[in-house]
Amino acid sequence: MAVYTRIGAEAMDALIARFDVGTLTSAKGIAEGVSNSNWIIETTGKSGGGARFILTVYEERTEVEELPFFLNLLDHLSAAGCPVPRTIHDVDGAPFREFVTDDGETKHLALIEFLPGVSADNPTPGQAEAVGRALAGIHLAALDYPAQRKNTMGHAAWRGFVADCEGRWGEIDSALEVVPTAVEDVIARWPRGLPQSVIHADLFPDNVLLVGDSVSGLIDFYFACTGPMVYDVAVTHAAWSFSGDGKRHDRAVGDAILRGYEAVRPLSSEERAALPIMSEGASLRFLLTRAYDWLFTPAGALVTKKDPLAFKRRYDFYQREGAGAFA
Amino acid sequence: MAVYTRIGAEAMDALIARFDVGTLTSAKGIAEGVSNSNWIIETTGKSGGGARFILTVYEERTEVEELPFFLNLLDHLSAAGCPVPRTIHDVDGAPFREFVTDDGETKHLALIEFLPGVSADNPTPGQAEAVGRALAGIHLAALDYPAQRKNTMGHAAWRGFVADCEGRWGEIDSALEVVPTAVEDVIARWPRGLPQSVIHADLFPDNVLLVGDSVSGLIDFYFACTGPMVYDVAVTHAAWSFSGDGKRHDRAVGDAILRGYEAVRPLSSEERAALPIMSEGASLRFLLTRAYDWLFTPAGALVTKKDPLAFKRRYDFYQREGAGAFA
Repeated sequence: MAVYTRIGAEAMDALIARFDVGTLTSAKGIAEGVSNSNWIIETTGKSGGGARFILTVYEERTEVEELPFFLNLLDHLSAAGCPVPRTIHDVDGAPFREFVTDDGETKHLALIEFLPGVSADNPTPGQAEAVGRALAGIHLAALDYPAQRKNTMGHAAWRGFVADCEGRWGEIDSALEVVPTAVEDVIARWPRGLPQSVIHADLFPDNVLLVGDSVSGLIDFYFACTGPMVYDVAVTHAAWSFSGDGKRHDRAVGDAILRGYEAVRPLSSEERAALPIMSEGASLRFLLTRAYDWLFTPAGALVTKKDPLAFKRRYDFYQREGAGAFA
Repeated sequence: MAVYTRIGAEAMDALIARFDVGTLTSAKGIAEGVSNSNWIIETTGKSGGGARFILTVYEERTEVEELPFFLNLLDHLSAAGCPVPRTIHDVDGAPFREFVTDDGETKHLALIEFLPGVSADNPTPGQAEAVGRALAGIHLAALDYPAQRKNTMGHAAWRGFVADCEGRWGEIDSALEVVPTAVEDVIARWPRGLPQSVIHADLFPDNVLLVGDSVSGLIDFYFACTGPMVYDVAVTHAAWSFSGDGKRHDRAVGDAILRGYEAVRPLSSEERAALPIMSEGASLRFLLTRAYDWLFTPAGALVTKKDPLAFKRRYDFYQREGAGAFA
């Protein structure tokens, strides 16, 4: 949670004026997003009725060359009826803009549709089923998305994190010393040739807005990439069906994710068979980034460190349960 | 900027249901406020048209016994037509509520009207004049406010900060070693018997929302107290008419603060004569809290340290210019 960029009122006025959305009436920095800065923006709207947007300023960790992939994807999915915020294009038709901050740095920003809804903390099976349906919906809608993007959090990245953390697992917890072996084991057993689409790859409860049991928004597509659809199901299962610390698995929620997904897009037998190993891999992927952040985030950084063990426990669960983890 | 309290979606739903404002549709933690946690809340509204609010959770630095003073003051000023957000009372009529956080702590919260507007970074004389008028408006409207509150950032507090920082001024800058003497000098020359009301006592640009040159909201009354009205004028003059670092004084903005104020409430000759010493005092008050925070804020705290020298420069300006600083 943080706002890393300072934009004064006059500068904000001028930035918003580059979009055909009326004049600025309010701008409040929000405590969301770990890599980018975000504001809730209010304007008079084009017809004077008032309108709201999320303004995102991309900070160091986002590659500008990748913005068209992410921002056009939102438009593609939204046009297909998925609950995804549209990108507001500027008066020149561009989906993002360069600007100079008050501190003289050149950065990039985009204006995104504001969607209502709140994120679930203790998801119900009803909510999980809706999330499964929405996930299948974006997979199907993205099948004809023309662009591709490599998963920057794939196997090569896993090995990179393992190398970075070498010899230091015990600083977090000795239970993590098996991680290098587990990573190589999962990569060795990784199935190939599964059906691909654009996957969200980070669909945690934080990234889903709900109104009651309905999904009003899937957000934060900045890890979206081309990949096996069933890996996204595994990420979502790992993200939703455990207590935050990974100690308690909620079978009803996990089953509901799958039930919702398959109501829209049934898994093939190959995908079904891949679920356990994909889930082990998904658990390791988040274990690794958390371990890296744990060891390398400078003291005093404006982010909360998350416990890598929460995903070691998920990994252990999936290894132990195998296919029995899934309905 | 920070959100110190975690409130899950279900808990937030239940909290908002205690106010007669419709059902929750969105809640986003905002990066505002240094002592409290704040969210922008959206609900369906009572009549289904949608409504927005600021939810404030009071953290350690706010005394619960003082909340009625602050929250009833908002209602009093708003009812008098001042651009101040109303307190939304709960279904039992209470202006604030106790609740238990997800982490099991008992805290207090209030729901406040959301007001449009943005804070000026480089205020124009037109904006400063509007702020002066609004400040005089709250002074007049608060004359019949029935409650009193001592200024917790008054002379006793100044001496407390001086004692806390003893021997450590040089860690910030050797220019600050004169501060203990300056504080005693200002206290010795402090005029008594000036007309009092409830004063805001912290009316920095951050705490004023503007739509164009109109004041749409005065916010953050958590330093409001009973005190000499001209001291509030001095605080506002010091807050608005300098560059942030205190190196550049904007005479046109300073004059506009006074002109706007006096258009609504002319200063007496005693108040006029008190402006220089009040402004020296106002500068020292912010110098002292910044110096204390500079020396005692733990590394890694989620706040930005502000430079005490920015207010040493203002103090020097007011001492040098005397009555000549004011139109």
